[in-house]
Amino acid sequence: MSYPPALARLIRLLTRLPGIGEKSAARLAFFILRGDDQYPVELASALSDLKRQTRYCSTCFSLTESDPCSICSDERRDKHCICVVEEASDLLAIERSHGYRGLYHVLQGAISPLDGRGPEQLRVRELIERLKDGGVQEVVLATNPSVEGEATAVYLARLIKPLGVKVSRIAHGIPVGGNLEYSDQATVGRAIDGRREM
Amino acid sequence: MSYPPALARLIRLLTRLPGIGEKSAARLAFFILRGDDQYPVELASALSDLKRQTRYCSTCFSLTESDPCSICSDERRDKHCICVVEEASDLLAIERSHGYRGLYHVLQGAISPLDGRGPEQLRVRELIERLKDGGVQEVVLATNPSVEGEATAVYLARLIKPLGVKVSRIAHGIPVGGNLEYSDQATVGRAIDGRREM
Repeated sequence: MSYPPALARLIRLLTRLPGIGEKSAARLAFFILRGDDQYPVELASALSDLKRQTRYCSTCFSLTESDPCSICSDERRDKHCICVVEEASDLLAIERSHGYRGLYHVLQGAISPLDGRGPEQLRVRELIERLKDGGVQEVVLATNPSVEGEATAVYLARLIKPLGVKVSRIAHGIPVGGNLEYSDQATVGRAIDGRREM
Repeated sequence: MSYPPALARLIRLLTRLPGIGEKSAARLAFFILRGDDQYPVELASALSDLKRQTRYCSTCFSLTESDPCSICSDERRDKHCICVVEEASDLLAIERSHGYRGLYHVLQGAISPLDGRGPEQLRVRELIERLKDGGVQEVVLATNPSVEGEATAVYLARLIKPLGVKVSRIAHGIPVGGNLEYSDQATVGRAIDGRREM
């Protein structure tokens, strides 16, 4: 006695998703099985459309429906500055802050030798190409403050500086609304290192 | 600037799943987007097949591909005993224990007035029908030891006893491999109440 094949197959496929174990997968599958008839149909169609209707901008490698993407083709953006992020989701986080008006470059990951991901697996070559025509004056490195993100930032800084382009790194410190007492040591250390005169 | 529509749609649909918030949904969607091309196709097809190829046994209301299910149609099972469970997944847990050789009845839930689920939303009427021909001598109530499961067991016991059928409840106590020190009060209390002479 086991699950009917169609259910077992769905559970098996769902366990491939990150953070979904066998029990979670079974719970999701039962939820879908018991839920309204339209939901699995819609979900199946969204999955089929996903790769077909989503592509990467050939300039900045962000996710887009049209190429070049809406940011790269926006004449009001500052073409002298490129902000380098790991993922398109990071780009969206920066856009939501309304604090940046330049262009972007999405690396599609960070350097991580343990995962077999070196600069050649990322969009590093394409970034350097964009800097060669001389129009870009500053590159803002906005990779995450993780080991991989820092390594990637250091690597890129070394690569870009010789091209005569200013390289900066986003600030790390106590989050707005956070407090010193509950911040980890590394964050507090960064906040003190990065102090600014008032 | 936001996610491309196909990606946004998938994220929106995924957040409907239990335990999946917006961030988890985005993580899953990005995983699918970056993963191999075959995976979303297979997942979409599994979703489309799910409801079409999975049905409920018209006797015990367990999940099955053929009706009646493999347990109801198995001549070697003891037809004098019906074990009542909330869900098909509970039935599978009991089957895995190899400790029961009778039939089952899946209620498809438990009584939960707060969720608007009364006996008429469950397969209670169908259970009583099965008891009427007189062949069943014992009903084992194996609903969960939760508030809803207990309420359901008490309700069913009151309903079934007048029909002259023996009603039993599965034992609750210290799990095998567990220990007294770390068991909660209710479990220890049940273990003492349910003590058996050696």
